[in-house]
Amino acid sequence: MNYQKLITEVYGDVQQMGLCGKVASYIPELASMNVEKFGISLITTDGTVYEVGDTYEKFSIQSISKAFTLAMVFATEGENLWKRVGVEPSGNPFNSLSQLEYENGIPRNPFINAGALVVTDIIRTKSEVPLEDIIKYIHSLANSNTIASNKKIALSELKNSSRNKALAYFMKSFGNIESRIDKLIETYCYQCAIEMTCTELAQAFLLFANHGKNPTTREQLLTTSQTKRINAIMQTCGFYDEAGEFAFKVGLPGKSGVGGGIAAVLPGKFSVVVWSPGLNQKGNSLKGMKALELLTTKLGSSVF
Amino acid sequence: MNYQKLITEVYGDVQQMGLCGKVASYIPELASMNVEKFGISLITTDGTVYEVGDTYEKFSIQSISKAFTLAMVFATEGENLWKRVGVEPSGNPFNSLSQLEYENGIPRNPFINAGALVVTDIIRTKSEVPLEDIIKYIHSLANSNTIASNKKIALSELKNSSRNKALAYFMKSFGNIESRIDKLIETYCYQCAIEMTCTELAQAFLLFANHGKNPTTREQLLTTSQTKRINAIMQTCGFYDEAGEFAFKVGLPGKSGVGGGIAAVLPGKFSVVVWSPGLNQKGNSLKGMKALELLTTKLGSSVF
Amino acid sequence: MNYQKLITEVYGDVQQMGLCGKVASYIPELASMNVEKFGISLITTDGTVYEVGDTYEKFSIQSISKAFTLAMVFATEGENLWKRVGVEPSGNPFNSLSQLEYENGIPRNPFINAGALVVTDIIRTKSEVPLEDIIKYIHSLANSNTIASNKKIALSELKNSSRNKALAYFMKSFGNIESRIDKLIETYCYQCAIEMTCTELAQAFLLFANHGKNPTTREQLLTTSQTKRINAIMQTCGFYDEAGEFAFKVGLPGKSGVGGGIAAVLPGKFSVVVWSPGLNQKGNSLKGMKALELLTTKLGSSVF
Amino acid sequence: MNYQKLITEVYGDVQQMGLCGKVASYIPELASMNVEKFGISLITTDGTVYEVGDTYEKFSIQSISKAFTLAMVFATEGENLWKRVGVEPSGNPFNSLSQLEYENGIPRNPFINAGALVVTDIIRTKSEVPLEDIIKYIHSLANSNTIASNKKIALSELKNSSRNKALAYFMKSFGNIESRIDKLIETYCYQCAIEMTCTELAQAFLLFANHGKNPTTREQLLTTSQTKRINAIMQTCGFYDEAGEFAFKVGLPGKSGVGGGIAAVLPGKFSVVVWSPGLNQKGNSLKGMKALELLTTKLGSSVF
Repeated sequence: MNYQKLITEVYGDVQQMGLCGKVASYIPELASMNVEKFGISLITTDGTVYEVGDTYEKFSIQSISKAFTLAMVFATEGENLWKRVGVEPSGNPFNSLSQLEYENGIPRNPFINAGALVVTDIIRTKSEVPLEDIIKYIHSLANSNTIASNKKIALSELKNSSRNKALAYFMKSFGNIESRIDKLIETYCYQCAIEMTCTELAQAFLLFANHGKNPTTREQLLTTSQTKRINAIMQTCGFYDEAGEFAFKVGLPGKSGVGGGIAAVLPGKFSVVVWSPGLNQKGNSLKGMKALELLTTKLGSSVF
Repeated sequence: MNYQKLITEVYGDVQQMGLCGKVASYIPELASMNVEKFGISLITTDGTVYEVGDTYEKFSIQSISKAFTLAMVFATEGENLWKRVGVEPSGNPFNSLSQLEYENGIPRNPFINAGALVVTDIIRTKSEVPLEDIIKYIHSLANSNTIASNKKIALSELKNSSRNKALAYFMKSFGNIESRIDKLIETYCYQCAIEMTCTELAQAFLLFANHGKNPTTREQLLTTSQTKRINAIMQTCGFYDEAGEFAFKVGLPGKSGVGGGIAAVLPGKFSVVVWSPGLNQKGNSLKGMKALELLTTKLGSSVF
Repeated sequence: MNYQKLITEVYGDVQQMGLCGKVASYIPELASMNVEKFGISLITTDGTVYEVGDTYEKFSIQSISKAFTLAMVFATEGENLWKRVGVEPSGNPFNSLSQLEYENGIPRNPFINAGALVVTDIIRTKSEVPLEDIIKYIHSLANSNTIASNKKIALSELKNSSRNKALAYFMKSFGNIESRIDKLIETYCYQCAIEMTCTELAQAFLLFANHGKNPTTREQLLTTSQTKRINAIMQTCGFYDEAGEFAFKVGLPGKSGVGGGIAAVLPGKFSVVVWSPGLNQKGNSLKGMKALELLTTKLGSSVF
Repeated sequence: MNYQKLITEVYGDVQQMGLCGKVASYIPELASMNVEKFGISLITTDGTVYEVGDTYEKFSIQSISKAFTLAMVFATEGENLWKRVGVEPSGNPFNSLSQLEYENGIPRNPFINAGALVVTDIIRTKSEVPLEDIIKYIHSLANSNTIASNKKIALSELKNSSRNKALAYFMKSFGNIESRIDKLIETYCYQCAIEMTCTELAQAFLLFANHGKNPTTREQLLTTSQTKRINAIMQTCGFYDEAGEFAFKVGLPGKSGVGGGIAAVLPGKFSVVVWSPGLNQKGNSLKGMKALELLTTKLGSSVF
């Protein structure tokens, strides 16, 4: 397979479509992103890198960070994790409280905000320096030491964190959060404000394409079975209430973020990251969704 | 891969676990099924059949029929279908009305009852003999002419169809059902009462493992893309509110029924059907779920 | 108190406001009502009648009929009635299914459609001629034998009864409906299509202002306590999801219908009926709501 | 009417029923209340006081404080208040978040916790010393200067305030809270921890029986219309999801608290307070509910 040709074609086709979308507007730092940016990085499990477009520019990974924190916590907690968070799709927006209420403070899955807060809560209760640990983990996966959290974005998110605080206090009222809420939300905002390039992110996501092996060190961070399970959760829950749509059109496990990034894997074959800040109405990158749909269509291959 | 050894091992391991479950009890005909029954049929895309246990006994396919009616309708309607039914997981039990209310009579996906009723409604509006057409379609896929609907079961279901009638009238009030409700429910009950053996069902499900080709005639019934999409929907929505759990533990697209059958595929490789009438609390075959979990674990292979 | 002066003033004030509203449009027979019609009848517990405007024209009482069927059934069933229907406000539109689902087929109160269907179901199971019995009951209360159901309206409602059929089948699935659904819905549609004048309706509603005595025959149809309770339910549940608003602005127990009628009582003092077919967004008569608000304000008296 | 005889009879009848209930257990200070306590104070609009039982013991008024803060805010804000909080019954438990979500952060009414938080938020934004102002207002109504907030209870509530913080942050995310959340919750907890005797509370509640006049100073604090409206809201929303039941059985506007108090009024006639710490499953005083039901039954008089 000529992956370079493939992603170049996809890139060109998407560019011609004149898709635009809207950048996230809830904080000024994201609102000022250049909606024209567009990059694709694909890395095969043997480590070969294919790139096109703006693949060397750092962007805010936002919710994609949830895949890394989930991997960290699943490795240490094992099946116990599922006592505090479920694995079912939510059928609701990412920050909904209703379902959480009917289900007594146990979030539906680790990718809705409530579930991600539980995951970060676990990291916090095990570590003195939770944010450092998260960044160190991503450093190691991405084989890069220039990865950092953008403080300005983090602080701006903190100012707009009422909904997440509501979720956290609500779960605390059910006994499913241990941390102090202000500290938890702080770690969470800094985690979401981590910035990476397409290629760094694709490198780090090889973990999930590679049966749980650290793509750089070859260390087995997750068992094959754990990796399979995280992929299953990404497939069914990785795109808010557009998860079915993504499975339907793209057919790869993946995770998106409001920074405009989407990271996905074809297990055993490759990881792929698309970045373009213009979002569709569900909060997923418009060009990114289309690019991945074209990619699996042209490739004639998806998990299905 | 020695598939015969694989399914024989899985069969033996599951039998030793002493799992039991409860047969469906809402109609006497299902309640009287022998909970001890257990069979596995696996058929590779080259047509080789592997079997163990009670694979030659007919059982009620129930909701698994929804995969066939979806395939029929998707082939003729194409993308228009999605105006009347969604592709998102529901996060609710299979016969819930609440979500249907918030979403104005458009069912979340074709595998919850409301969505399956819309699909059958479309078949009815195109055909004078909808049930015959459904059975003929399955005949052709399964290469068997002994497949029929069990009238006694169908009539018993009809007597217990208040909830489905409520769903149908509710959607009609939103303009999303065209048929007369009594006729629609009748067709639907007969469709669910179709009986097949594990091997017949696995043969028919090769369609989804085989990029949309009729496994017998090699006729292309669905495009590659349509097949991928049905698989994606089975993955995210095929197991009621246990879809995430199934994706998580098994990692194959599939569809279950309260008759105790589960049909699944590893695209490009094989279809597999497990039948055991004892159900877990979510209404999925207890032994069936466990058998498929073991199968993909031993196989070291799933879609993820 | 000069009630004639009071209602004449109220009538004049409301007319000057140029309120309009929209007539109910879901069936042609209601859609063709003259939106200009407006009448007020007030009858004190001593039987004196005060009228202004279109008080001699028959209109479709629609949901106001639910107050009469509730009175009939409460008198015969007593407290047992509350096993099958609640007395709490719903906080939802009149034909919502969601709450019914969470509460296992027991409607919140007898004035949402689901609850009224249960009430009519009880009448049906006790009588060979349920509609005749309902009409006879109203005849007796209103001291008029020209009250009848409008067949054309009833049949038109029947054609548009999918939502009510959904409610009925849904409750049947929980065992809370005994009648055949088609028969139940037929009785219900005919009951809603009963036509009365403002004055006839006010006469009949004296029952609730008069501690349960038939205003004409002086027969005690309901105990004082039962009457108090029906008034309480009218107060908290009589105006769909505008019940609080009505209690807040008007402060009288009452019941409205989409035909544009509102019947209310000041217990121990009077009954009052306002009719004007233009509805507000919640489905209550726009002029009627305003007239009753002015009436209690000018009167300086409400239940509060 | 011999009110002394009436309440003494009611008191005796209820004592003989052997009702018990459970004291609120979420904080130790309430959990340690003596479940045997029981008092009734009734004060007519001319100021005559009738008492029986434990009417001179201070108890925690809890949610009954919401009636006073509502009165304070309604007097200053007028109709503008209703832009930030509704007047409809909720049909849900007092601390539910689901409805708040569907209605974009506007609480259904001022008596569910979310609505009471909005009311206290308004007081906070107008005053440097909000708690003092609330207590001063109650002092003036009750003509007593021994009324204070119990600091131990307030601090204990603060420790258990995760759910209320969740509600507050959630509304803040919709822009419907202005205060700092920690300060708001603090004021709210101190307000709920105010302690009064039955007689003090009945004295203060005369405001609502007396068309808005301060029962002590005769100052007109609320207009007649505003008083009517607060009574209407108490009637439809004052008892959580038992409001309909209370209207149905008792038929008086009133407000209950988890400290076991219930305050109610018969407008133009009297206020009445019942206190007994044993609660029913809905969180309302078991003896209190029964006492008021008997009282209006024996009296043959309610608002209905």
